[in-house]
Amino acid sequence: MTVVLGANRYGKAETRVVRVTRDGDVHHLKDCNVSVALSGDMAEVHLTGDNSAVLPTDTQKNTVYAFAREHGIGQIEDFALLLARHFTASQPAIHHARVAIEEYSWERQGPHSFTRSATEIRTCVVHHDQDGTTSVVSGLRDLVLLNTTGSEFHGFARDRYTTLQPATDRVLATAVTAGWRHLPAGTGAYDYGKSYDDVRRCLLEAFAGTHSLSLQQTLYAMGARVLTACEEICEIRLALPNKHHFLVDLTPFGLDNDNEVYFAADRPYGLIEGTVRHDHAPDPGPAWD
Amino acid sequence: MTVVLGANRYGKAETRVVRVTRDGDVHHLKDCNVSVALSGDMAEVHLTGDNSAVLPTDTQKNTVYAFAREHGIGQIEDFALLLARHFTASQPAIHHARVAIEEYSWERQGPHSFTRSATEIRTCVVHHDQDGTTSVVSGLRDLVLLNTTGSEFHGFARDRYTTLQPATDRVLATAVTAGWRHLPAGTGAYDYGKSYDDVRRCLLEAFAGTHSLSLQQTLYAMGARVLTACEEICEIRLALPNKHHFLVDLTPFGLDNDNEVYFAADRPYGLIEGTVRHDHAPDPGPAWD
Amino acid sequence: MTVVLGANRYGKAETRVVRVTRDGDVHHLKDCNVSVALSGDMAEVHLTGDNSAVLPTDTQKNTVYAFAREHGIGQIEDFALLLARHFTASQPAIHHARVAIEEYSWERQGPHSFTRSATEIRTCVVHHDQDGTTSVVSGLRDLVLLNTTGSEFHGFARDRYTTLQPATDRVLATAVTAGWRHLPAGTGAYDYGKSYDDVRRCLLEAFAGTHSLSLQQTLYAMGARVLTACEEICEIRLALPNKHHFLVDLTPFGLDNDNEVYFAADRPYGLIEGTVRHDHAPDPGPAWD
Amino acid sequence: MTVVLGANRYGKAETRVVRVTRDGDVHHLKDCNVSVALSGDMAEVHLTGDNSAVLPTDTQKNTVYAFAREHGIGQIEDFALLLARHFTASQPAIHHARVAIEEYSWERQGPHSFTRSATEIRTCVVHHDQDGTTSVVSGLRDLVLLNTTGSEFHGFARDRYTTLQPATDRVLATAVTAGWRHLPAGTGAYDYGKSYDDVRRCLLEAFAGTHSLSLQQTLYAMGARVLTACEEICEIRLALPNKHHFLVDLTPFGLDNDNEVYFAADRPYGLIEGTVRHDHAPDPGPAWD
Repeated sequence: MTVVLGANRYGKAETRVVRVTRDGDVHHLKDCNVSVALSGDMAEVHLTGDNSAVLPTDTQKNTVYAFAREHGIGQIEDFALLLARHFTASQPAIHHARVAIEEYSWERQGPHSFTRSATEIRTCVVHHDQDGTTSVVSGLRDLVLLNTTGSEFHGFARDRYTTLQPATDRVLATAVTAGWRHLPAGTGAYDYGKSYDDVRRCLLEAFAGTHSLSLQQTLYAMGARVLTACEEICEIRLALPNKHHFLVDLTPFGLDNDNEVYFAADRPYGLIEGTVRHDHAPDPGPAWD
Repeated sequence: MTVVLGANRYGKAETRVVRVTRDGDVHHLKDCNVSVALSGDMAEVHLTGDNSAVLPTDTQKNTVYAFAREHGIGQIEDFALLLARHFTASQPAIHHARVAIEEYSWERQGPHSFTRSATEIRTCVVHHDQDGTTSVVSGLRDLVLLNTTGSEFHGFARDRYTTLQPATDRVLATAVTAGWRHLPAGTGAYDYGKSYDDVRRCLLEAFAGTHSLSLQQTLYAMGARVLTACEEICEIRLALPNKHHFLVDLTPFGLDNDNEVYFAADRPYGLIEGTVRHDHAPDPGPAWD
Repeated sequence: MTVVLGANRYGKAETRVVRVTRDGDVHHLKDCNVSVALSGDMAEVHLTGDNSAVLPTDTQKNTVYAFAREHGIGQIEDFALLLARHFTASQPAIHHARVAIEEYSWERQGPHSFTRSATEIRTCVVHHDQDGTTSVVSGLRDLVLLNTTGSEFHGFARDRYTTLQPATDRVLATAVTAGWRHLPAGTGAYDYGKSYDDVRRCLLEAFAGTHSLSLQQTLYAMGARVLTACEEICEIRLALPNKHHFLVDLTPFGLDNDNEVYFAADRPYGLIEGTVRHDHAPDPGPAWD
Repeated sequence: MTVVLGANRYGKAETRVVRVTRDGDVHHLKDCNVSVALSGDMAEVHLTGDNSAVLPTDTQKNTVYAFAREHGIGQIEDFALLLARHFTASQPAIHHARVAIEEYSWERQGPHSFTRSATEIRTCVVHHDQDGTTSVVSGLRDLVLLNTTGSEFHGFARDRYTTLQPATDRVLATAVTAGWRHLPAGTGAYDYGKSYDDVRRCLLEAFAGTHSLSLQQTLYAMGARVLTACEEICEIRLALPNKHHFLVDLTPFGLDNDNEVYFAADRPYGLIEGTVRHDHAPDPGPAWD
């Protein structure tokens, strides 16, 4: 039995770049967090410390800033693709690039004044390989949703450790983490900004509009709504914590509690994870790595 | 020399209460985090473990939930006052109550559907004493603001450790923590919701509207704007981190950087703290504790 | 094109259980965070909200507590296996269980007194399938290591965005996240506690003992040391952030800085991820999911 | 009524400095986080943006690094005093300096290799004024303690919202935040390292050794032990969250639970804050600000 090097990648993580664009007196703002991971023919640096194939992570950081200057930052997916293609072309040993970007949203208060808005963060993960294959997963995290009614949970399986009472009317709350995979397409084929807005709206509408018998049902409804409305998307993965809101027992104080007063618990929480996809979705390859 | 007990207080911290109110099919939501701290004649429990003067923190938690049911949660300041008055009347040994509440904001998506909105959190700290004195400090935290221009910093003092270059055009960004003290008044004298909206608007307008020669100047302008516009407020305290955005040097890559590409740094950061008040503001007593 | 349900799982996450065992006056303490994820024949709950195959996450939480009472908590891997086997036997629809446990360490101060110790957290992820296959990945996170010398970085690839100067003596610091996969074996075949201690010692020794030309080289040395010393382990995956410590330029103050004063940066950071394995390591299946 | 500037201060917060000292092949490591806040005659910068009295926060950061080089970092209190005295002498307008330092501990693994150890963080807050007055508060935070027995809670006050059952044997757990004030003394009068070790030992011994009828009693015992053992300390302030460990009801599963299985809750938690001091402790002035 011999010890060998397996899968590996390296890069600069969490380069915080803010790009200002001036349109006369009106300024525009993009606020991103860029993480690069490169892989390829990297056996030597692991086995002997020979760095001749290693483009420094410091250089990757520099490239993010230089590209922000040279190309601006439009949709994060486009900027990530630009970087990924650059890195795979930079060095023969670098066969594959993964670029992940988070974008923080700002609301305009004046020509050059802004407030951070929303709690949700827009994300993307892009892969590009020297063989020309590319994948784009867009997403979001920390989109916190709550329905005060329209949610039930009963008819579940039971065993000797089951004490939960059936619920016919409960609060349903979650913090959505989602990633959606785009069908492969040529450069510029997609308007990722419009796509993001469409998906976000579908997620909100399906969450608000689904009378829920389980969070799994809601998850599927959210995913199916996205796939039905957005034909460029072939797969979506959702992670939905069930942020429990427990009705407080007020009977010791002579009070009823007709779904009015809740304890919002931290831990433990349910965690529902699921994929919704087209039946003929192409193989994802490394898209979700 | 003798060892003695000094100032002390105790209570239940961070009781997470969500209150739903139904107006036909339309539901309303209040989402709060309540922290209670009681003090008074508490020597015995410290010195001998005699708990006869100690109202359990568990009881305090129960009271928060019961009061949410009985009285609803309107403006957080009013709810905090209600609790504080209750606790000081509950036990002879409890002379003083401090109630602090954080409120998380939600945006309506439908009759009973909501998303968490904004990143800022509304706060209040209320004190009530058995002697009848009361104080109300309202506030907010995590209100993140950024101006892409209209900020300078030069003409500063220098010593042998000074290397900073003067700036005539820089990004100015901060995350506001603010507390503002209301003039003492009878119950129901103030509409704390309107007051909050007014103060928030003043803070935003002063930040966006001040051509800044220093963050101190901006701080004072924010505070003065609030005191001038809101006559019920006699003092405001602001803590403004200077969230540095450093212009990236792109000259090694043959590129200029005319205030377009910034590195958003984490640490260290400047921290500017200041008070703006009326010259005849009444003594705060324990209001800021 | 049809929308279909893809991979999915659900369960109770982060059940915090503390187990006390009494040995006369001497007490023992286990402090764990247990996350369960179940999968199987779960199409109905997603498509129609029919919960008849769904063992509630509340029941999973109850089971963790009841098993802690009935079986105690020995090595976390053994406790996770016990739970995973139980859940796959509980309901015909549940084909597969993933149980992840974090353990927090405590240092004895007296017969029944303890302090939380170390910053590192011990982890495991166990999979068990109805078909009888099982996998055990043990691990740790937040093991923070630093060498003040014995680290170089030079001879790297360069492109037009490279400005980094070669380093012949630098600080090397990281926070280890590691998972190591055990060869399949029968119940009770392994002493996971001894295994943990062995791996931890190998990681520390290899980090301290390797004169490093790159963090990749150190990563491989750490992994190879583990595989060589611990024959029950067939694969290890390491994620090593390069926590940059930048030498501060003190020349403006007339001072040299011969590797004495460093700025410990937050972001960005390098991130080196790699796998070291036996060349004939069996297929991992879902072990790393 | 006129709007006026009230109390204010400014400075550079969280400068992360790591200092290496070489003793032949054996290296030593100090890892600190330094926050400076200066105050004085600062009306102009607030009112008009005139920065002529403002020593830039960037300069303060530079000073931390230069002083680390010139003077080394011994005990954090001594380093903080050195900085505070420097800043008040630097500019006529700067009358007062507050320097707060956190220190992270490392355990030696080899001549130049270290692991981060413990979860507790050592702290100090030092004030120095142009008038020559000085205060030193040393402290710690995140020292997590737990007793599995030897804690009761009963005989407490009750009102209509009280449902808590008396406890005669419960887990008592907390995360200590403490600050202790030293009697004023000349430079070099104290060995702050020895003092820290003494206080820490007293806190641990009093927590472990006190049969507790309430967390308040334990708090007082911890404080009194410190003051009795360490004559250089005239006051200690403790904040002790009561990290609730709730006994899980296992009767639905036919199991008893004789103080063996606990749920470690996150929120809410009790919070006990108290001061223990000498009856003739000198006036603290701004020591605790």
